[in-house]
Amino acid sequence: MNGIGAHEVIIETPHHTDSLADMPTKRIEDVLWAYRDRMIDLKKDVRFRYILIFKNHGASAGATLEHSHSQLIALPIIPTSVLGEIEGCRTHYEQKERCIYCDILRQDLSDGDRVVAENPEFLCVTPFAPRFPFEMWILPKRHAGYFEECQKLQFEFLAPILSEALRRMDKVLAKPSYNFILHSSPLHEKTGDFYHWHIEIIPKLTQVAGFEWGTGFYINPVAPEESAKSLREASL
Amino acid sequence: MNGIGAHEVIIETPHHTDSLADMPTKRIEDVLWAYRDRMIDLKKDVRFRYILIFKNHGASAGATLEHSHSQLIALPIIPTSVLGEIEGCRTHYEQKERCIYCDILRQDLSDGDRVVAENPEFLCVTPFAPRFPFEMWILPKRHAGYFEECQKLQFEFLAPILSEALRRMDKVLAKPSYNFILHSSPLHEKTGDFYHWHIEIIPKLTQVAGFEWGTGFYINPVAPEESAKSLREASL
Repeated sequence: MNGIGAHEVIIETPHHTDSLADMPTKRIEDVLWAYRDRMIDLKKDVRFRYILIFKNHGASAGATLEHSHSQLIALPIIPTSVLGEIEGCRTHYEQKERCIYCDILRQDLSDGDRVVAENPEFLCVTPFAPRFPFEMWILPKRHAGYFEECQKLQFEFLAPILSEALRRMDKVLAKPSYNFILHSSPLHEKTGDFYHWHIEIIPKLTQVAGFEWGTGFYINPVAPEESAKSLREASL
Repeated sequence: MNGIGAHEVIIETPHHTDSLADMPTKRIEDVLWAYRDRMIDLKKDVRFRYILIFKNHGASAGATLEHSHSQLIALPIIPTSVLGEIEGCRTHYEQKERCIYCDILRQDLSDGDRVVAENPEFLCVTPFAPRFPFEMWILPKRHAGYFEECQKLQFEFLAPILSEALRRMDKVLAKPSYNFILHSSPLHEKTGDFYHWHIEIIPKLTQVAGFEWGTGFYINPVAPEESAKSLREASL
């Protein structure tokens, strides 16, 4: 490991007061293309082993800039939490010969209770065991390990479902601060068979406190079926 | 694993507006004895595998009660983050035949740069790689895996150093919200040779945001030698 890295700020709009949730779908699509183009470019530098894309919206979610933006950080190592996630996926794949996220998609499409929004290419759900109240995941329906290998058609469907998820969250939770994090395969690793890229959205409603720091467990007072119902039924 | 557990609130004072930092040392000692007595009692229930003691002080550190208190949670499993810490200690012990916290004590006593406070039984330091600005650890100088096996003499020295650490923090950071977490060996496990109980104090100054959630890494803008110097040199 050495000290190499990259940190880029993706400015999502020329308008200082716009928020991502309120932007036209086409603009969100452009933001997704910017993520992809920067990933493709930075991937050429073989010293980078992981590219993290995330968004902090609102001061209590850690945003230090008011103007709507996302961030990209390229790292010379694979982060601890990504390694943990990948190991979980690998174990499931070895045991069942299936991707765990494909299994989640199948179960949530069949149950329906945790579905927030859906279109031909993507599903937005509240996860089965969410760490945070109103946590949401957006998953591509077709198995794919690498966000940057998305087809044009997929971005055309990802932009509206991301927009819808954020607008439903804004409606139900009165425009909360939030983080979203793109979870994609590490660069140059053969993890594409069992890892499935997705976006995790975390509204900032609770504090991480002593219990969480002492255990790594998260107390969440809201069942995912309840939060999905509120989000799904909100009138936009 | 089943749903068994215990959750207790330790009320630290009869006075609603007192904070732990401002209490007489003798009262803090009583609080420590309460921790110990409850641990000894709950340990008799063999279904419990871990007892976590922690304190949330201030709303932004997750406190929902104003009156000064700590909390105890007994769990039927060993928490993820405790398992990780124990595995790290075990690896170090297998490689070096020494407890890693004893090595930290030796190095910090020799360097001095990260020392915040010291007495015959305890050392308070800022850790070498802190996750958070002004994070502090209080370590017993004598190797011991289990908090609840503390000698009376040790509580007589732990109370004043905990008080001093909190008062130095209050002075330098203007009475911040904070968490502290007692890290002690799991119950009924033979981890006492390589695990060393200690207290971790985390002032709540930064937000856990997208980068931290996406990586498990923590951005900390303050070097531990700088924070230790400010804390150590504050006039009480």
